[in-house]
Amino acid sequence: MTCGTGVELPFLIRPENTARYEDGEVLILDRRVYPFEVKFVRCKGYRDVAEAIRDMVTQSGGPPFCAGYGMAQAAREARGRSSEGILEELERAAKCLIDTRPTNNGIILMTEKMLDVGRNAVRNGHDVENALVQAVNAEFEARHKRGLAIGENGASLLRDGDSVLNHCWAESGIVYTVYVALQQGKRLTAYCSETRPYLQGARLTADALCDMGIETTVITDNMPAYLMSRGMISKFFTGADRVTMDGSVINKIGTFQIAVSAHYFGVPFFAFCDGPDPKAPTAADVVIEERDPNEVLHCLGQRTATPLAKGYYPAFDVTPAEFVSAIVTDRGVFSPYSMVSYWQ
Amino acid sequence: MTCGTGVELPFLIRPENTARYEDGEVLILDRRVYPFEVKFVRCKGYRDVAEAIRDMVTQSGGPPFCAGYGMAQAAREARGRSSEGILEELERAAKCLIDTRPTNNGIILMTEKMLDVGRNAVRNGHDVENALVQAVNAEFEARHKRGLAIGENGASLLRDGDSVLNHCWAESGIVYTVYVALQQGKRLTAYCSETRPYLQGARLTADALCDMGIETTVITDNMPAYLMSRGMISKFFTGADRVTMDGSVINKIGTFQIAVSAHYFGVPFFAFCDGPDPKAPTAADVVIEERDPNEVLHCLGQRTATPLAKGYYPAFDVTPAEFVSAIVTDRGVFSPYSMVSYWQ
Repeated sequence: MTCGTGVELPFLIRPENTARYEDGEVLILDRRVYPFEVKFVRCKGYRDVAEAIRDMVTQSGGPPFCAGYGMAQAAREARGRSSEGILEELERAAKCLIDTRPTNNGIILMTEKMLDVGRNAVRNGHDVENALVQAVNAEFEARHKRGLAIGENGASLLRDGDSVLNHCWAESGIVYTVYVALQQGKRLTAYCSETRPYLQGARLTADALCDMGIETTVITDNMPAYLMSRGMISKFFTGADRVTMDGSVINKIGTFQIAVSAHYFGVPFFAFCDGPDPKAPTAADVVIEERDPNEVLHCLGQRTATPLAKGYYPAFDVTPAEFVSAIVTDRGVFSPYSMVSYWQ
Repeated sequence: MTCGTGVELPFLIRPENTARYEDGEVLILDRRVYPFEVKFVRCKGYRDVAEAIRDMVTQSGGPPFCAGYGMAQAAREARGRSSEGILEELERAAKCLIDTRPTNNGIILMTEKMLDVGRNAVRNGHDVENALVQAVNAEFEARHKRGLAIGENGASLLRDGDSVLNHCWAESGIVYTVYVALQQGKRLTAYCSETRPYLQGARLTADALCDMGIETTVITDNMPAYLMSRGMISKFFTGADRVTMDGSVINKIGTFQIAVSAHYFGVPFFAFCDGPDPKAPTAADVVIEERDPNEVLHCLGQRTATPLAKGYYPAFDVTPAEFVSAIVTDRGVFSPYSMVSYWQ
């Protein structure tokens, strides 16, 4: 996947480096240790996949694909059972996989889709496991096409010389945006807030952007406003774990805080997603996941805080529409106040 | 220093745990490893002290006292020289110590004061080293008295049940404020943003507040706005490395970003200091120190970012008066727009 200008998609966005299915096992790139180590966690069944998702082996856009392959594992486990037995197992797996990370809508959408694929395969007497694996592979292909579409839309917002700030893992939308913009000959620089406690910005996004040849600078999460005050940031881009129908952006903790500063300094904030969640009219309809407080008290496994203190770890936050300049999707660039038009 | 209600000043604020002078050596608590290790860096001369300050062995309110003792070491080094020789050495030491951290005004004020003490001692034929050591010890005593005065003023802003957010190291003003408020029987809870890359909030402030018996929760630097959005923070307190005459607060990077969110949510922001800098009419008169970018790419010595990326590390930021509710000093609580009255 090299484009005409020699730009290649970065290591992290290639399907085989998110997750792959090998002989009933799901191999998931361990994003907790990347890029210090390139290691794949090997899951023998969907319960292992669920555990890996819960333990943050992969995150953001990764879990849906892992969950999809987990569904194939459930079919393999149920091989030889009755049609009802197979479907029961698939439903059990779907529930188990969805329960891992409540804010990640992609897992819900993928497992629902895979339930349909499973039902069809059962009805038509096809190999259910194989049908599911093929379906997940097709989803990867669809992500690539959607990524290019989002990238075209995102790149239309970029000007030559832009300096883009990203928070957390850039995800395919932003990666493809940069990919397309570079193909268009635009010169870009990037800043990545490190994104404590998991350091996705410092480890994943910065790595992916550097992979595409962009000069990328890592800053701590408390620096964006200062950089904006010095005119060093022209656009603020993030992925979105969920966009609700009222244009609220639910994304990694810290997004909102940066968006407030961006608003003050007139730096536009663009959130990237595949589309808003039609089942979530407002942000109140989304559960904000609270993770193990201990994770806040550590960095890469090393204790960072006094042993006397407690921690608190809301993993996401909500940026209301008033702080969002636009939602960039595969179907175009939308005002946060017109999300309904995405589905029309 | 136990108060009537059994509240004790925390380990970190006791003079002997900031720095002490022993037989010509300056022992400085290594705040880079506290509380995981309680270790003192032993400085044989003022150049070692300067290096320790530059290397962040101590920070915030610590460097002035270390610099003061460093001046005593210069006098010891110059022992037996002519009056001019001694004063030349003191001036050389002052310059060396001031050059370590340009944003820390306390070093400038302390070394200027110690130059006066040195000149007087030379003029009166006193032991210069001894005069300087006694003068620094007196400064510690003065800090305690000033701390109690700031604490009285700060505590007047606290209500029973308040939940206070602090960024970076609370410094004596806030520690004494909590100390006095607890003596007044007020119940408080505290949140500390961890303050990357040095983690002063997680390691120092949280430790000091826990030491005083307050329930203290550490959060990452990207969480304050979220906590405010949920009504979890009633006051935002920070120290100030410098307050300029136009009411700008220069403090640890990240202060401004949190202040912008506090302003949005109507959470008052109080900055604590000994008084504004009469030599700095505006924030433009203060140099913002940029430190080694590598520090941003590491946490407690461990690499945190992709090896492909660069880092950027402005150590302080500027919060303009419009985001500051009040400046709390030993002489009272001032509007940021009336800093001149502090000196009247």
